[in-house]
Amino acid sequence: MIADNLYGFPRAEYEGRVDRAQRLMKQYCLDALLLTSMDNIRYFLGVDSTFWETYTRPWFVLVPAEGKPIAIIPAIGEALFAQTWVEDIRTWPSPRPEDEGTSLLAAAIRNLPRRYGRVGAELGLELRLGMPILQLSAIIGSIPEVEIVDGAGLIWQLRMIKSSAEVEKIRRAIAIAGAVFDQVPSFVTIGDSERKILRDFRGLLNAEGAGAIPTLICRSDVGGPFEITGGPRDRPIADGDLLFIDTGTTFDGYFCDYDRNYQVGRATDALRFAQDKVWEAHEVGLRKARPGITAAEVFKEMSEALSSVGADLNSNGRMGHGLGLRLTEPPSIRLGDETVLQPGMVICVEPALEYEAGKIVLHEETVLITEDGAELLTRRAPKQLVQIS
Amino acid sequence: MIADNLYGFPRAEYEGRVDRAQRLMKQYCLDALLLTSMDNIRYFLGVDSTFWETYTRPWFVLVPAEGKPIAIIPAIGEALFAQTWVEDIRTWPSPRPEDEGTSLLAAAIRNLPRRYGRVGAELGLELRLGMPILQLSAIIGSIPEVEIVDGAGLIWQLRMIKSSAEVEKIRRAIAIAGAVFDQVPSFVTIGDSERKILRDFRGLLNAEGAGAIPTLICRSDVGGPFEITGGPRDRPIADGDLLFIDTGTTFDGYFCDYDRNYQVGRATDALRFAQDKVWEAHEVGLRKARPGITAAEVFKEMSEALSSVGADLNSNGRMGHGLGLRLTEPPSIRLGDETVLQPGMVICVEPALEYEAGKIVLHEETVLITEDGAELLTRRAPKQLVQIS
Repeated sequence: MIADNLYGFPRAEYEGRVDRAQRLMKQYCLDALLLTSMDNIRYFLGVDSTFWETYTRPWFVLVPAEGKPIAIIPAIGEALFAQTWVEDIRTWPSPRPEDEGTSLLAAAIRNLPRRYGRVGAELGLELRLGMPILQLSAIIGSIPEVEIVDGAGLIWQLRMIKSSAEVEKIRRAIAIAGAVFDQVPSFVTIGDSERKILRDFRGLLNAEGAGAIPTLICRSDVGGPFEITGGPRDRPIADGDLLFIDTGTTFDGYFCDYDRNYQVGRATDALRFAQDKVWEAHEVGLRKARPGITAAEVFKEMSEALSSVGADLNSNGRMGHGLGLRLTEPPSIRLGDETVLQPGMVICVEPALEYEAGKIVLHEETVLITEDGAELLTRRAPKQLVQIS
Repeated sequence: MIADNLYGFPRAEYEGRVDRAQRLMKQYCLDALLLTSMDNIRYFLGVDSTFWETYTRPWFVLVPAEGKPIAIIPAIGEALFAQTWVEDIRTWPSPRPEDEGTSLLAAAIRNLPRRYGRVGAELGLELRLGMPILQLSAIIGSIPEVEIVDGAGLIWQLRMIKSSAEVEKIRRAIAIAGAVFDQVPSFVTIGDSERKILRDFRGLLNAEGAGAIPTLICRSDVGGPFEITGGPRDRPIADGDLLFIDTGTTFDGYFCDYDRNYQVGRATDALRFAQDKVWEAHEVGLRKARPGITAAEVFKEMSEALSSVGADLNSNGRMGHGLGLRLTEPPSIRLGDETVLQPGMVICVEPALEYEAGKIVLHEETVLITEDGAELLTRRAPKQLVQIS
């Protein structure tokens, strides 16, 4: 009863991912990868579930250096995992806090063919472990013959490069969000609250075929949002506002990360100047994002283009990042990130400027790095702000 | 610029939570709580953000045993946190992987008044740490004078008991989902796919005023869903199916967890018999859930009521759980969980039966434990299945 097309990918896609991971395991001297987070497990098995939302039951997948993945999961998930291509499924009756899969997982790790005595886990950069720390400690304590080491280097080296099938999912997520951004001037009017705009936007995303919508931010303030991380307010948008909408919408688990700005009524000269500057810095960044260039170099050129304004850059600390099964993935477009851009990377390029205290202009576009350049996946925002009246 | 009413709660609500936490810290011999996860930080500060979706930037809040909380956060969040009642906000320019707030947090812990030399963190039961494990290790290594211990006991003792203001949020989430469940027979017809039903359901939740909808499950199979954890399929619902819809919908961050079953066309006698049995076992559980009774006792009575059927119970491993800022919270309604039900607890009671191999009947209602009994927060499902044609 194995589905032929697992959440949009043929089985060969997953087998290819495991093959590449296994080649990297040799470089990293690992006997296996231990995966616990939704995105890493979905990456290898194609399983789609919102059960990660509950923290009662952890889920484990071992990808050994040779052979097929092993799923060690709560019994409640057995029938679901049986729909994927994983054949070796081991379960325990969960919840069982006194042994929440700990002994089963430890035994599975202990019985792996041992070449290096090292297993990579989600310990480091931009990773979160899908079980309590105390449980990991208990597992480590019960298998002294195996060292649990950081798998972040391998995981991101693998996941940073998207297959063309993955890029298609991201394109779909972008197309869905883009279709709704296009409609903003027709459903938003002066006097609407952030809360109403966000609700309408979310309804349209859903109607356009979005999957989960983990992030959707709407901020409107005089001359620009004072911050871009919080939930919506009841404040009505007013003449002179810059309306900012940013969404991490998914399709088959893959994200877009996509923002647009709208001028509400009249703009000041200062805002228009800042808008032009950010748009032009964006052009610089989008031209620079090419194979062989480092993430830091892309940042540097955009920041130089912006610094001529003489204003503070912004508090974001970076001007872009990778994108995939998570809203943000390595690399970061920032000074110090020497990751070399390579074909298959999908990068959000997002210059921002706090042109006056508490007035932010932030633009975001997404590119696919190709063999000989880059392809813009979003439709380029117009230099002239779209108007809302 | 402090909002008077922070995401639906007056400031006194948050101050009361900190007071109660501080009283418990003395019992648990802790100098502070270190919080990193969205729900725990929202619980104390009222901050609403989807920025936890990105794993690039960790967020830290210290609740000391005396005095006010301290936020140690990426600079990008400063303006948002300044809207909450927290006064002591310390920031670093994030991302900065070489020191992603580590030194700032270590210094803050080091400088806490030290009585016990112990700080409670999210290490244990049903908790996930909001930073990489390697970062926690670095912090622990740099403050040998302080022991980082498990804060799960305190956190859940505190959060298990809901204030009346919290219960109101859960009531709203339940009312929103309930209004959509009522409409199911009017927008679902034989031939619809799980994917379409789920999309329509999500659109209506949004229109009814839902916040984020982290979980929404739709499964339909002959005689009952074969599993209840996965994403939707294109399979059209057909005569003889039992259609199962389950949602974790939020309002101001608080969840409902709520399912309903619908008979598609004709039911077999076996399904009708199982449906009756689960409904009656539910009556038993709902009568049993009272202050002074343990979670295990509620499970035991429901499982006895079901076991007369002579079929396997189910693979869930429990028949209910707590509910609040997370979809599932302690306690678990299962053998072995000796948590005594107390006034203020909000408990989902969910008996289930796999009455034939791969045919599950699962019912879920939510109760508030009161001083002298329990109040049903959901509207009791009818014993007779609602029909879809």
